[in-house]
Amino acid sequence: MKTPARKKQENLAIAAVRALCIDEINKAKSGHPGMALGSAPVLTTLFLNHLNIDPKHPHWMKRDRFVLSAGHASSLLYALLHLAGYGLTMDDLKAFRQIDSLTPGHPEYGHTIGVDATTGPLGQGIAQAVGMALASKHLSALYPDGDKLFDHKVYCLCGDGCLEEGISQEAISFAGHNKLNNLILIYDANDVTLDGGLNLSNSENAKYRFLSANWDVLEVKDGNDIDSIDKALNSAKLSVSKPTLIIVHTIIGFGSKLQGTNKVHGSPLGEEDGQAAKKSYGYDYPNFAVPEEVYDLFKKSVIEKGEKAYQKYEDTLKWYERVHEQEYEVIKKTMENDVSAYLPEEISLEKKDSVSTRVASGNALNWLVNIVPNLFGGSADVAHSVMTSLKDKETYSPTCLEGVNINYGIREFAMAAINNGILLHGGLRSYGGCFLVFADYLKPAIRIASLSKLPAIYLFSHDSIAVGEDGPTHQPIEQLAMLRSIPHVDVYRPADEMETYASWLLALKNTTHPSCLILSRQNLTKLEASSYENVKKGGYIVSKENGPLMFSVLATGSEVSLAIEAQKILEAEKIYVRVISLPSLEVFARQEESYQKEVLGTSYDKRISCEMLSTFGWAKWAKYQMGLDDFGASAPAKEVIAKFGFTSERLVKLIKKALKI
Amino acid sequence: MKTPARKKQENLAIAAVRALCIDEINKAKSGHPGMALGSAPVLTTLFLNHLNIDPKHPHWMKRDRFVLSAGHASSLLYALLHLAGYGLTMDDLKAFRQIDSLTPGHPEYGHTIGVDATTGPLGQGIAQAVGMALASKHLSALYPDGDKLFDHKVYCLCGDGCLEEGISQEAISFAGHNKLNNLILIYDANDVTLDGGLNLSNSENAKYRFLSANWDVLEVKDGNDIDSIDKALNSAKLSVSKPTLIIVHTIIGFGSKLQGTNKVHGSPLGEEDGQAAKKSYGYDYPNFAVPEEVYDLFKKSVIEKGEKAYQKYEDTLKWYERVHEQEYEVIKKTMENDVSAYLPEEISLEKKDSVSTRVASGNALNWLVNIVPNLFGGSADVAHSVMTSLKDKETYSPTCLEGVNINYGIREFAMAAINNGILLHGGLRSYGGCFLVFADYLKPAIRIASLSKLPAIYLFSHDSIAVGEDGPTHQPIEQLAMLRSIPHVDVYRPADEMETYASWLLALKNTTHPSCLILSRQNLTKLEASSYENVKKGGYIVSKENGPLMFSVLATGSEVSLAIEAQKILEAEKIYVRVISLPSLEVFARQEESYQKEVLGTSYDKRISCEMLSTFGWAKWAKYQMGLDDFGASAPAKEVIAKFGFTSERLVKLIKKALKI
Repeated sequence: MKTPARKKQENLAIAAVRALCIDEINKAKSGHPGMALGSAPVLTTLFLNHLNIDPKHPHWMKRDRFVLSAGHASSLLYALLHLAGYGLTMDDLKAFRQIDSLTPGHPEYGHTIGVDATTGPLGQGIAQAVGMALASKHLSALYPDGDKLFDHKVYCLCGDGCLEEGISQEAISFAGHNKLNNLILIYDANDVTLDGGLNLSNSENAKYRFLSANWDVLEVKDGNDIDSIDKALNSAKLSVSKPTLIIVHTIIGFGSKLQGTNKVHGSPLGEEDGQAAKKSYGYDYPNFAVPEEVYDLFKKSVIEKGEKAYQKYEDTLKWYERVHEQEYEVIKKTMENDVSAYLPEEISLEKKDSVSTRVASGNALNWLVNIVPNLFGGSADVAHSVMTSLKDKETYSPTCLEGVNINYGIREFAMAAINNGILLHGGLRSYGGCFLVFADYLKPAIRIASLSKLPAIYLFSHDSIAVGEDGPTHQPIEQLAMLRSIPHVDVYRPADEMETYASWLLALKNTTHPSCLILSRQNLTKLEASSYENVKKGGYIVSKENGPLMFSVLATGSEVSLAIEAQKILEAEKIYVRVISLPSLEVFARQEESYQKEVLGTSYDKRISCEMLSTFGWAKWAKYQMGLDDFGASAPAKEVIAKFGFTSERLVKLIKKALKI
Repeated sequence: MKTPARKKQENLAIAAVRALCIDEINKAKSGHPGMALGSAPVLTTLFLNHLNIDPKHPHWMKRDRFVLSAGHASSLLYALLHLAGYGLTMDDLKAFRQIDSLTPGHPEYGHTIGVDATTGPLGQGIAQAVGMALASKHLSALYPDGDKLFDHKVYCLCGDGCLEEGISQEAISFAGHNKLNNLILIYDANDVTLDGGLNLSNSENAKYRFLSANWDVLEVKDGNDIDSIDKALNSAKLSVSKPTLIIVHTIIGFGSKLQGTNKVHGSPLGEEDGQAAKKSYGYDYPNFAVPEEVYDLFKKSVIEKGEKAYQKYEDTLKWYERVHEQEYEVIKKTMENDVSAYLPEEISLEKKDSVSTRVASGNALNWLVNIVPNLFGGSADVAHSVMTSLKDKETYSPTCLEGVNINYGIREFAMAAINNGILLHGGLRSYGGCFLVFADYLKPAIRIASLSKLPAIYLFSHDSIAVGEDGPTHQPIEQLAMLRSIPHVDVYRPADEMETYASWLLALKNTTHPSCLILSRQNLTKLEASSYENVKKGGYIVSKENGPLMFSVLATGSEVSLAIEAQKILEAEKIYVRVISLPSLEVFARQEESYQKEVLGTSYDKRISCEMLSTFGWAKWAKYQMGLDDFGASAPAKEVIAKFGFTSERLVKLIKKALKI
C-alpha cells in the first residue's frame, strides 16, 4: 500500500507532467494536449512504479520497453524522459517541435534517447510493441538461460485511433495467438476523436474484441485514480499466458475548459486556459518550472532504482559470460543488429543453369542461417511460395519459443511492423515475405523502418505479369516503382541465382536501412558475368558488345536474359549493343560517376530500360523504356508475356527505332 | 419446408457446381479448388433460394449484390453464373484462366457479366460489400420512396484470409456502427490456410469478434447441410438493426482425397482425384457435362423468378416516374455514375489572392454539391483538416440515412474500399479524404478502383514538408510518386484556387478512372494564367519568358509561385525562363505531342522540375530536378522549407548551374 505522502508526491508529479505538456505545446504553438493531459496519470505511474529501466543505460537489453503508439502525445513522453533523467533538458522541452530539436512532433527512434520506437502513423506502434514482446520471448528461449538476459515487459499506450486502424486487429490477433503475456497495452479511452465524439464513427466493445483475440482485459474506470492504475498494472504483469489490455477511461484535455471535447485534441490551450488548468491541478509554479520534490521522486523511483537494476543486470551478464562463454560472444556481437562479423567477403556458388530467384532466395536464406546466428522471420501465409522457410528449423509457437520460422498469417502490414519491433528490440535479424503485389499492404511499415534506420529485409516474390493465371489483381506493375521511391531503401531485383545470393548478403551487411528483394516466380537462366563483386556496385556490364558500341540496354531480373537475346539478334545485323544488369538502382546511384559512365557506355539518348513492370522512374537512367504501364491479364505466364510484347523481337525493334535504323 | 424432391434437386445442383469447379481448374491446370468445393453448397443455396437477381438484367438497381471477397474461389462463381444464365457458356468455363477469356483467375468487375466486384486482394471484398450496403441505405433515404427502388441485400463470402487482413476489422466495425442490417457476410470457416492449419497463425473467436462490433452472428455447423444454410440465410434477412455474420463450417476441398488439408487450397485435383471426388458426390457425368435437371432447377428458381422480380421492378419504376417525375429524372441520369449532365463547361470564379488548396477544395466541393445531386463522401477523421465536409448538410448515421457527410473513423483503407463499393453499387459519386502521407494506408484500394474502372475521388491534403511541426512521420515525400505510378489514375496537384476547382470538375467528369487531388495545408497565391481550359490540358505556360527563351521550370502546386519568383530574379540578369504549371502529369501526357512541345518550349536538357516532394518519376519530363529525396523534419513550416532549401534562390542557382552560367 502506498503511503498518503507518496500518493501526494505522485499526484504532484502528475500535475508537473501535465503542466510541462501545456507549456511545451503553448510555447510551440503546436501539438496535441488532449491525450497528453488525459494520459498523464497512467504514464507517470508507469514510469514511477513499474517500468524496469535505467535512464543512464537507455539501451540495455533486459530493460522494459515503452511504445507510445499514440505518437501525437509526444509532449507527454518528453516531459517524462526529462524528469526521469534521460538527458532531455528543460531547454529541449522549450524547443518542442522546433528545428533540429530533440523533441520533434512525433517520437523518433534514434533521434531522442529513451524513445523506443518511431510512432505517429496510427496503429503501427501496437504492432511494433508486439514485435518487441515476440523478440523478448524468442531470445529468452533461443539462448540457454536466455530469460535472465531477455525476459522483460513491453508496454504500449494507444488511443481510439490506433484501435480503429486495421493493423491493430492483425497485431492483437497475432499477439493473442502467440500468448505474449509480456505485452501490456494501455488503451487511453477518452471517447473523443479529431472530428468529434468517438460515437460518430465507432461503437465497438473493445473489451470483448480483445477477449475474442485471447487477451486478458482489465479496466480502470477513472484515469486519474492512480491506485486503480497501479493495481491494474500489477495484475497485468502477473499474466501467465495472455497479453493484457488495460482500458483506462480518461478525459481528453483534462483541466482545460475544453476538456472532454475534440477542440482540445490538437490545439494548444493558450496561456489563459493553461494557467487555469494548472490551477485546477493545484499546481502553482511558473511555466517550465518543476519543484525539486518532483525531481526527487523521479530520482528515487526511477533513476536510483534503475541504477540498481542495471547493476544487477551487469552482474548477470558477467555471470553469463562465465557460464555461457560462447553464447555470450554471439549475443555481444549481434545485439546491435550488426551481423557483419559473421558474413563472408565472397560467395562461392556453383550456379544452377535455371532457377527462379524465389527458390534461389530460399537457398541463400538456408545457407545464411548456418552462418548467421540470429535470423528470425517468416511470411504472410505464403512460406512455400515465397520460400521463406528455414529448412529443418522449428516454427515459432507458444510451445516452441525457440522456433525461428514465424507464421504471420494473412497479415502483411502487421508482419512488417512486427518485424520493425523485432529490430527495435535488438538481437535478431528479421525478414518477412509476401507477393510483390501485396507490398501495397505493408508499405507504410517499410516507410517507418526506413525513417527509424532499421535494417529490415523484405522478400517479394511473383514479381511481374509472369505470375500468370492469378491475373491482374495478383500481378505487380507499379509496386517496384513504389518501393524504389521510398527514401533510403535499397531495392534489389536479382537476375539469377548468384545475384540473389549477393543481394541477400548485401541486405544483411546493411545495418542502417531496409532492403527489398524482388523475386521471380519463374525460372531464370544463369548469367556468366554475375558475381558478388558486381552486385555490390548495383549495376555492371553483364554482356559486352562485340563491336563498336551503339546502344545500351538497362535490364533487371527476368529481363536481363531477354536483353541478351536481343543483343545477339542485333549483333547478327552488326548493331552492337551492351547489356547492363542493374540489380539495384539505389546501390548503382551511389557509385562514383566515373563507374556509372563506364558501365552505361552510351549517352542518355542511346539507352533503353527493359523491365516487365511500370516504366515509372526509369527515365532517370535511359531515354527509352520497354515496360508495362497497364494492368496485366490472367493466363499462363508465357501467354501473358506474349500479350504484352515482352519478347526480344520487340526490344530489337525498339532499339532500331531509337537508332533510326 | 422443402420437399424431398426439391432437396434432391438442390443436392444434384451442388454436385454439378462442384464438378464444374473441378473441371475448370483441372483444364486450366491452375486455380483454387479448396474453398470452391467447400463453399459450393452455401453459394448454390444462396443463388437458388435467396438472391433477388435477374440474370437477363444484371445491372438493375434493386437487385441483391453478391461479392466474392475470397476471389480465389472464382471457379465457383463462374460455375454459378453459367448455370444461372448470365451468359457465361460452357466454352467460357473451359477457358478458365486463359488469355482474354471471360473467366480470369480472380473475378473482375466490368469484365464478366454478373460479377459485382473485383476481388482477390484479401479483405477488400468485405469493405466493398459494406460500401454497397451503405449506398443502398443512403439512396433509399435520399429519394422519396427510395426504398422501393434501392432497398436490397448485399451478400458477401469471405474466408479466413479476408478476416485476418486488418481492413476487415475496419469494415466490420464501420458496418456494425452504422447498423447495416442489409449486409450478410458468409464466413467459409474451413480452418485451413495456404501454409497449413489455421491454428498456425490464428486462434480468434470470430463469433465474439463480430458480436463486439455489433453484428448478429449465426452458425451453420455443417457446410453441406442445406437446410441449416437456408435457415440461417432466412434468419439473417430478417435482421432489423444489425449486419449478420453467418459462420459456415466447411471442409476445404470437399470430396478430394486431400480434403481438409492445405494441399488442396491452390492446386488442381487432377483427373483421377477429380473423378473420385465426383463419385463421392454421387455425380456420374462426363467432364463439363451438366444434366438438364440442374439447368431446369436454375431456370425455375433463378431465371424465371428473376424475370418476374424484374418485371415488378419495372412496374415500380414506371410508377415512380409518374409519382416522382423530377427525382426519377435525377436517378436515371446518375445511375451509371455519370454526372456530366450536371457539370458546367466553364468555371466562373473570383480568385482569392491567397488560399490553401485544401480550403479551395472544400469550397469547390460545396459549390459542386449544389449542382451535382448525388455526392456522398467524407474523411478518415480529418474532415476539418482536409475540408471534406459539405456545409449545412447532415452527417450520415443510422438515424439519418439521408445524411451525406460520412464519418469513416480512423480507417483510411476501409474508407477507400467502401467508396469503391458505393461506386460499384451505382447512383452516387463518392469521395474520401485524408493526409497525403496516409495515402500509403489506402493505396491498395486505389489500385482496385483503377482496375475496376471506378471514378473514385481522393482528397489528399497536407501535401509536403510544409506540414511543419508534425514532422517526418506526417510529411509526405514519396507518396505523390506512388500515386502517379498507378496505371490509369489521374493525379492533380493544383497550384491555386482556380486549378483546384478545375481539378474537381475534371475528376467528376471522369466516369471511368480514379482521380486524386493533392492539396496544400498552407496558403498559395493566385495565378493570373490559371483557368479551367488550361488545367484541362494537364499543363500550360503559367508565366511566359520576357525575352529569348533559355530554360523551362516545370512546377506543381505550392512550387509554382516559387518558380515565378525565381523567374523574376533571373530576368533581372537577362536569363529568360519559362514557368510551366503541371497540375496533372497524366493529363498532360495524353495531349498531342505538338502541344506538349509548345508548352515545354525548351529541349530536355534545358528543363528543371520543381516539386517539394520526391523527384522520383520527374526525369521523364526534365533533365534536372529540384525536389526532396529524404525524410522531412519537425518545425514550423517556414523553417522546414528553409532547411531543405526550397527557396527561389536555390532554384536560381540550379538553373544557372545547368546553363553553365
